Amino acid sequence: MEAPVSGYSKAMETLMQNLGRLPGIGAKTAERLAYHVMRMPKAEVLALAQSVPVVAEKLGSCSRCFNISDTEPCAICADASRQADLVCVVEQPKDLVVIERTGQYRGLYHVLGGHIAPLDGMEPEHLTIDALVTRITRDGIKEVILALNPTMEGDTTAHYITRKLSGLPVQVTQIARGIPSGSPLEYASKTILTDALAGRRRVE
Amino acid sequence: MEAPVSGYSKAMETLMQNLGRLPGIGAKTAERLAYHVMRMPKAEVLALAQSVPVVAEKLGSCSRCFNISDTEPCAICADASRQADLVCVVEQPKDLVVIERTGQYRGLYHVLGGHIAPLDGMEPEHLTIDALVTRITRDGIKEVILALNPTMEGDTTAHYITRKLSGLPVQVTQIARGIPSGSPLEYASKTILTDALAGRRRVE
Repeated sequence: MEAPVSGYSKAMETLMQNLGRLPGIGAKTAERLAYHVMRMPKAEVLALAQSVPVVAEKLGSCSRCFNISDTEPCAICADASRQADLVCVVEQPKDLVVIERTGQYRGLYHVLGGHIAPLDGMEPEHLTIDALVTRITRDGIKEVILALNPTMEGDTTAHYITRKLSGLPVQVTQIARGIPSGSPLEYASKTILTDALAGRRRVE
Repeated sequence: MEAPVSGYSKAMETLMQNLGRLPGIGAKTAERLAYHVMRMPKAEVLALAQSVPVVAEKLGSCSRCFNISDTEPCAICADASRQADLVCVVEQPKDLVVIERTGQYRGLYHVLGGHIAPLDGMEPEHLTIDALVTRITRDGIKEVILALNPTMEGDTTAHYITRKLSGLPVQVTQIARGIPSGSPLEYASKTILTDALAGRRRVE
């Protein structure tokens, strides 16, 4: 087989192509990464290589909260020190991650797997809403915090879930919408200010 | 007198210099504006020129709310259709403008003229806080909405005002802080998410 036009060996070409398929990694970055791999100690290269298929095999979703996990249930659901009757509902695992990073939330989560968007083919039955209803009844959840995105789709989904949960013995709350901390009032949009005025709270 | 080095007439030079002193107008923009003025019909030029000193003479601040105004009281304070027992406290006139633009607020305002910042020499007595206290007592204000910037200085000022108003027969509220409408959860800072969780509201 002839050498590729780029002048790289076939092995380097393949590595660069495979790296270049990852999101956010263009041809140049793939080239730089491939060079780095080429100079890494052999043991590190093997450890890296072995870790890739392991992820593919082991990663699944937690059967309770639907977060990405390589254990069943996930580490959060298995943590007995967390408040088990409080569930925060998010659209995606990445939303769970940002809330978890605040260090302020000690309840459990429920990952919907997206939001309702009929035009994109996302109907309620594609989300884990039924599983949420089951969980509330079965596990005696006392409060469900809706932490969906403050967008039209997020709002639609929040409304749908609120209707679905009405009648169940659970309190449904929604994270506050308003002025983002640190950002001057003058840069806030009409909608943000309208939310902030409507949601004003009594100061103690 | 010799011609200026730039090659412009003395009149153009002076105009460009004066325009260039306005905020956000650099030398290039000043030059472009001066050119435009040069080609404007003489009547328009005169009208523009006359409007400048009028502003300087007439503009003052409303004796009630301290908003910039060329009438006394200002148009908002004079508007009998507005809710006179509701006052929204803002740092600057530009904050009043953004809230007014929402079209959702029908009460009155109170412009503090800044925030408490001792390191910058801004002490409570430099703000219109005493006038706010007088207004509440004299005009029977029932609710004061604090709409200060969600910054350390804004918070300090809000706390100071809250303490100052405690004991008065007025309800003190604060505009909601949380996730800004339209912005995905994953881009929110820890502080924003902490505010949003702490400020969660029951969904009806």
